Amino acid sequence: MSQTKFVLGEDAIPTHWVNLLPDLPGEPLPPLNPGTGQPAGPEDLTPIFPMELIGQEVSMEPEVAIPDAVRDAYRLWRPTPLFRARRLEQALDTPAKIFYKYEGVSPAGSHKPNSAVPQAYANAQAGVKKLVTETGAGQWGSSLAFACSLFGLECEVYMVGSSYDQKPYRRSMMQTWGASVHRSPSDRTQSGRAQAENTTGSLGIAISEAVEIAASRPDTNYALGSVLNHVMLHQTVIGQEAMAQLELADAVPDVIVGCVGGGSNFAGLTFPFLRGTLRGENQIRYVAAEPAACPTLTRGVYAYDFGDTVGLTPLMPMYTLGHGFVPPPVHAGGLRYHGDSPMVCGLVKAGVIEARAYKQNETFEAAVRFARTEGIIPAPEPAHAIRATIEEALAAKEAGEERTILFGLCGHGHFDLAAYDAYLAGTLEDPEFSEENLQAALAALPENAPALS
Amino acid sequence: MSQTKFVLGEDAIPTHWVNLLPDLPGEPLPPLNPGTGQPAGPEDLTPIFPMELIGQEVSMEPEVAIPDAVRDAYRLWRPTPLFRARRLEQALDTPAKIFYKYEGVSPAGSHKPNSAVPQAYANAQAGVKKLVTETGAGQWGSSLAFACSLFGLECEVYMVGSSYDQKPYRRSMMQTWGASVHRSPSDRTQSGRAQAENTTGSLGIAISEAVEIAASRPDTNYALGSVLNHVMLHQTVIGQEAMAQLELADAVPDVIVGCVGGGSNFAGLTFPFLRGTLRGENQIRYVAAEPAACPTLTRGVYAYDFGDTVGLTPLMPMYTLGHGFVPPPVHAGGLRYHGDSPMVCGLVKAGVIEARAYKQNETFEAAVRFARTEGIIPAPEPAHAIRATIEEALAAKEAGEERTILFGLCGHGHFDLAAYDAYLAGTLEDPEFSEENLQAALAALPENAPALS
Repeated sequence: MSQTKFVLGEDAIPTHWVNLLPDLPGEPLPPLNPGTGQPAGPEDLTPIFPMELIGQEVSMEPEVAIPDAVRDAYRLWRPTPLFRARRLEQALDTPAKIFYKYEGVSPAGSHKPNSAVPQAYANAQAGVKKLVTETGAGQWGSSLAFACSLFGLECEVYMVGSSYDQKPYRRSMMQTWGASVHRSPSDRTQSGRAQAENTTGSLGIAISEAVEIAASRPDTNYALGSVLNHVMLHQTVIGQEAMAQLELADAVPDVIVGCVGGGSNFAGLTFPFLRGTLRGENQIRYVAAEPAACPTLTRGVYAYDFGDTVGLTPLMPMYTLGHGFVPPPVHAGGLRYHGDSPMVCGLVKAGVIEARAYKQNETFEAAVRFARTEGIIPAPEPAHAIRATIEEALAAKEAGEERTILFGLCGHGHFDLAAYDAYLAGTLEDPEFSEENLQAALAALPENAPALS
Repeated sequence: MSQTKFVLGEDAIPTHWVNLLPDLPGEPLPPLNPGTGQPAGPEDLTPIFPMELIGQEVSMEPEVAIPDAVRDAYRLWRPTPLFRARRLEQALDTPAKIFYKYEGVSPAGSHKPNSAVPQAYANAQAGVKKLVTETGAGQWGSSLAFACSLFGLECEVYMVGSSYDQKPYRRSMMQTWGASVHRSPSDRTQSGRAQAENTTGSLGIAISEAVEIAASRPDTNYALGSVLNHVMLHQTVIGQEAMAQLELADAVPDVIVGCVGGGSNFAGLTFPFLRGTLRGENQIRYVAAEPAACPTLTRGVYAYDFGDTVGLTPLMPMYTLGHGFVPPPVHAGGLRYHGDSPMVCGLVKAGVIEARAYKQNETFEAAVRFARTEGIIPAPEPAHAIRATIEEALAAKEAGEERTILFGLCGHGHFDLAAYDAYLAGTLEDPEFSEENLQAALAALPENAPALS
């Protein structure tokens, strides 16, 4: 019998986060104040973020120390296991070695607590009483609810309408940890009332609602579960652990695969490896998998755009479908975002990361195949990564090469089983991507920002 | 910072199961053929079980080797972590040290795959094509569905009606692993049709349905998720690992707590320690926590009774509420069983194990307290163990003693969040235990069995 699971003791929880910002190719592109078109400064962010996180957002230090209290909370689920997917390899009859880093062992069931905990801690240290946030499928909202319960903060969550309806138990989970949860768009904010006709909601709208509330109350801050640099930073515990575990497995990755919604799971897994790639120390390929229904990296334009739908945030340099784009209600709610992390987008633009888009049914086909071989039922988001991984494994078989593939299994699908029901019943839809909606949204990009080449 | 999580490598997966049968006090009480009243022999069991499992059921060897293929499948989630509940200790302000062994990391989310995997493997080795089983809350049915998918067996599950209605996603989970699932009582069996008036169903009825089908088809066997000796045996991987992990933690338990439905989680955690207790090598106390709505150990009689409602199984010596007793539909579906493992019952009878019964709301109060400190949302079944653990921790505080408590967190509550909803909304019921129903069921105990003192 051969080793299947590579586990580390608590002493292997990283002591630092990896900051890839100083390694990125080209000149850094700052976020812009949407009113002036000038680079946004800390004063643009202090109404909604504590200084500690603003500092992390712009830090050019290659490493950032993890506070003791955060590392202590990480012990509740970290280090997470790395698995060799031997049974999937056998089913595919591939010479490829497939490894996956499993973040579903966290209390909330995904990688999201890796950033929720340091964000809640930094806010608690700054004297903030309450955090407000948005959530798509509920992974981020439940993670922040959990983190707030650890540090005695109140938590209020705006949950994207389509996910609120599809995944009622995610709401129950947030409430069990003490949070209050509202369906977005809601009638509690100007932003929500202005978007009332969007009945399914979107991450962009829910962000507007949460930011609006945080900006208007002195003891209340906002927390974002992806996109921003400090969130990418926090997630790098994933890749650092994976690196140590692959070493235990005596394996060197040829390709690393992750799904991308806002980019935090992908960045968390890849950035520690990408530092070596950017410095010419390794030749790893990187594949970002996204939904064909919300194909930011494969069909979006590279431009400055708002992070939210209403236009309350600074402008960020990224691939975008337009902040007004409302994706169809696919079950991978965590991937229904019009933009992506500027850091990840810059690396796609530079050709370092390859992006691929998949339809809903083909990702669920891959997920069921995975569940029936490896046991774990994946969330719809990492099902995209599994689909791309199977493609890579079959390409290795075609080429007759023993390639090593690492992918991020960023969460379990325990709250997504209605989607599996629909897939198994043959009633799951592959919503068409609307070129018309895309062009309309792109026509409404902000005008007072410089073009990006 | 102090250590929170005690993890073991794959080489620490036990190589043997612990068989406590030879250590039990008193003369062994055999199961009886209900027709003759004589001890049941292998021929009573071969229509529904493979010889390998029948051999394990009656083995007097102190240890039974775990097959390589089973150990290999165990690697998908074992060893499971042992946690020190430091945040709960702080919240209780207790000098007690609280440890918990967490089985929720398995693909199905509980300890049940520990026995589902060896049962599926033994049947596959014997050339069986299909397994039929019952399930309460769905933990066992999903575990067997998972195990059958690993070894290429078909799987058919009869799910207790009240749980089928309360936990629809457990059904989806079983189907994702390829099983077919029916609400019990169903119209597919004589047993089900005869019990059609019991609209909420019970484990006893669902067992009758599954046994009836398995007994009537040559290529189909039955699998039971608890109660029988071989299931207790398989679960002892839990306690063996916990023993090694407590050693890492430099801790010696004063008391071990588990919930009891059929007894397999409780036996799995305690039996490796109990061997030492029965041999006079340690002084550990044992607490079994059960629901006040189905108080088998605290209100039942010690007698020979059927394992199922209709009366298809051998008679077993156990505490029983009467095989006709249908418990009210509490959310801890896995604890809604009229009897309990004969091995566990014998130890309760001998005074080695103390039993306590808890009402539904007080167990959810404990579960929410646990979720808000330790992060993990427990299943309703181990919420009973958490309730008893908190009592023990407060008793240690009262006594001013630094006692060490170990409890079994046998599964997560991701499919039980409707129950948390009800608890948080204040609408969760504490169903009254009906003395009248109990007396009626006890009046119908089988007559052709010897009385037990």
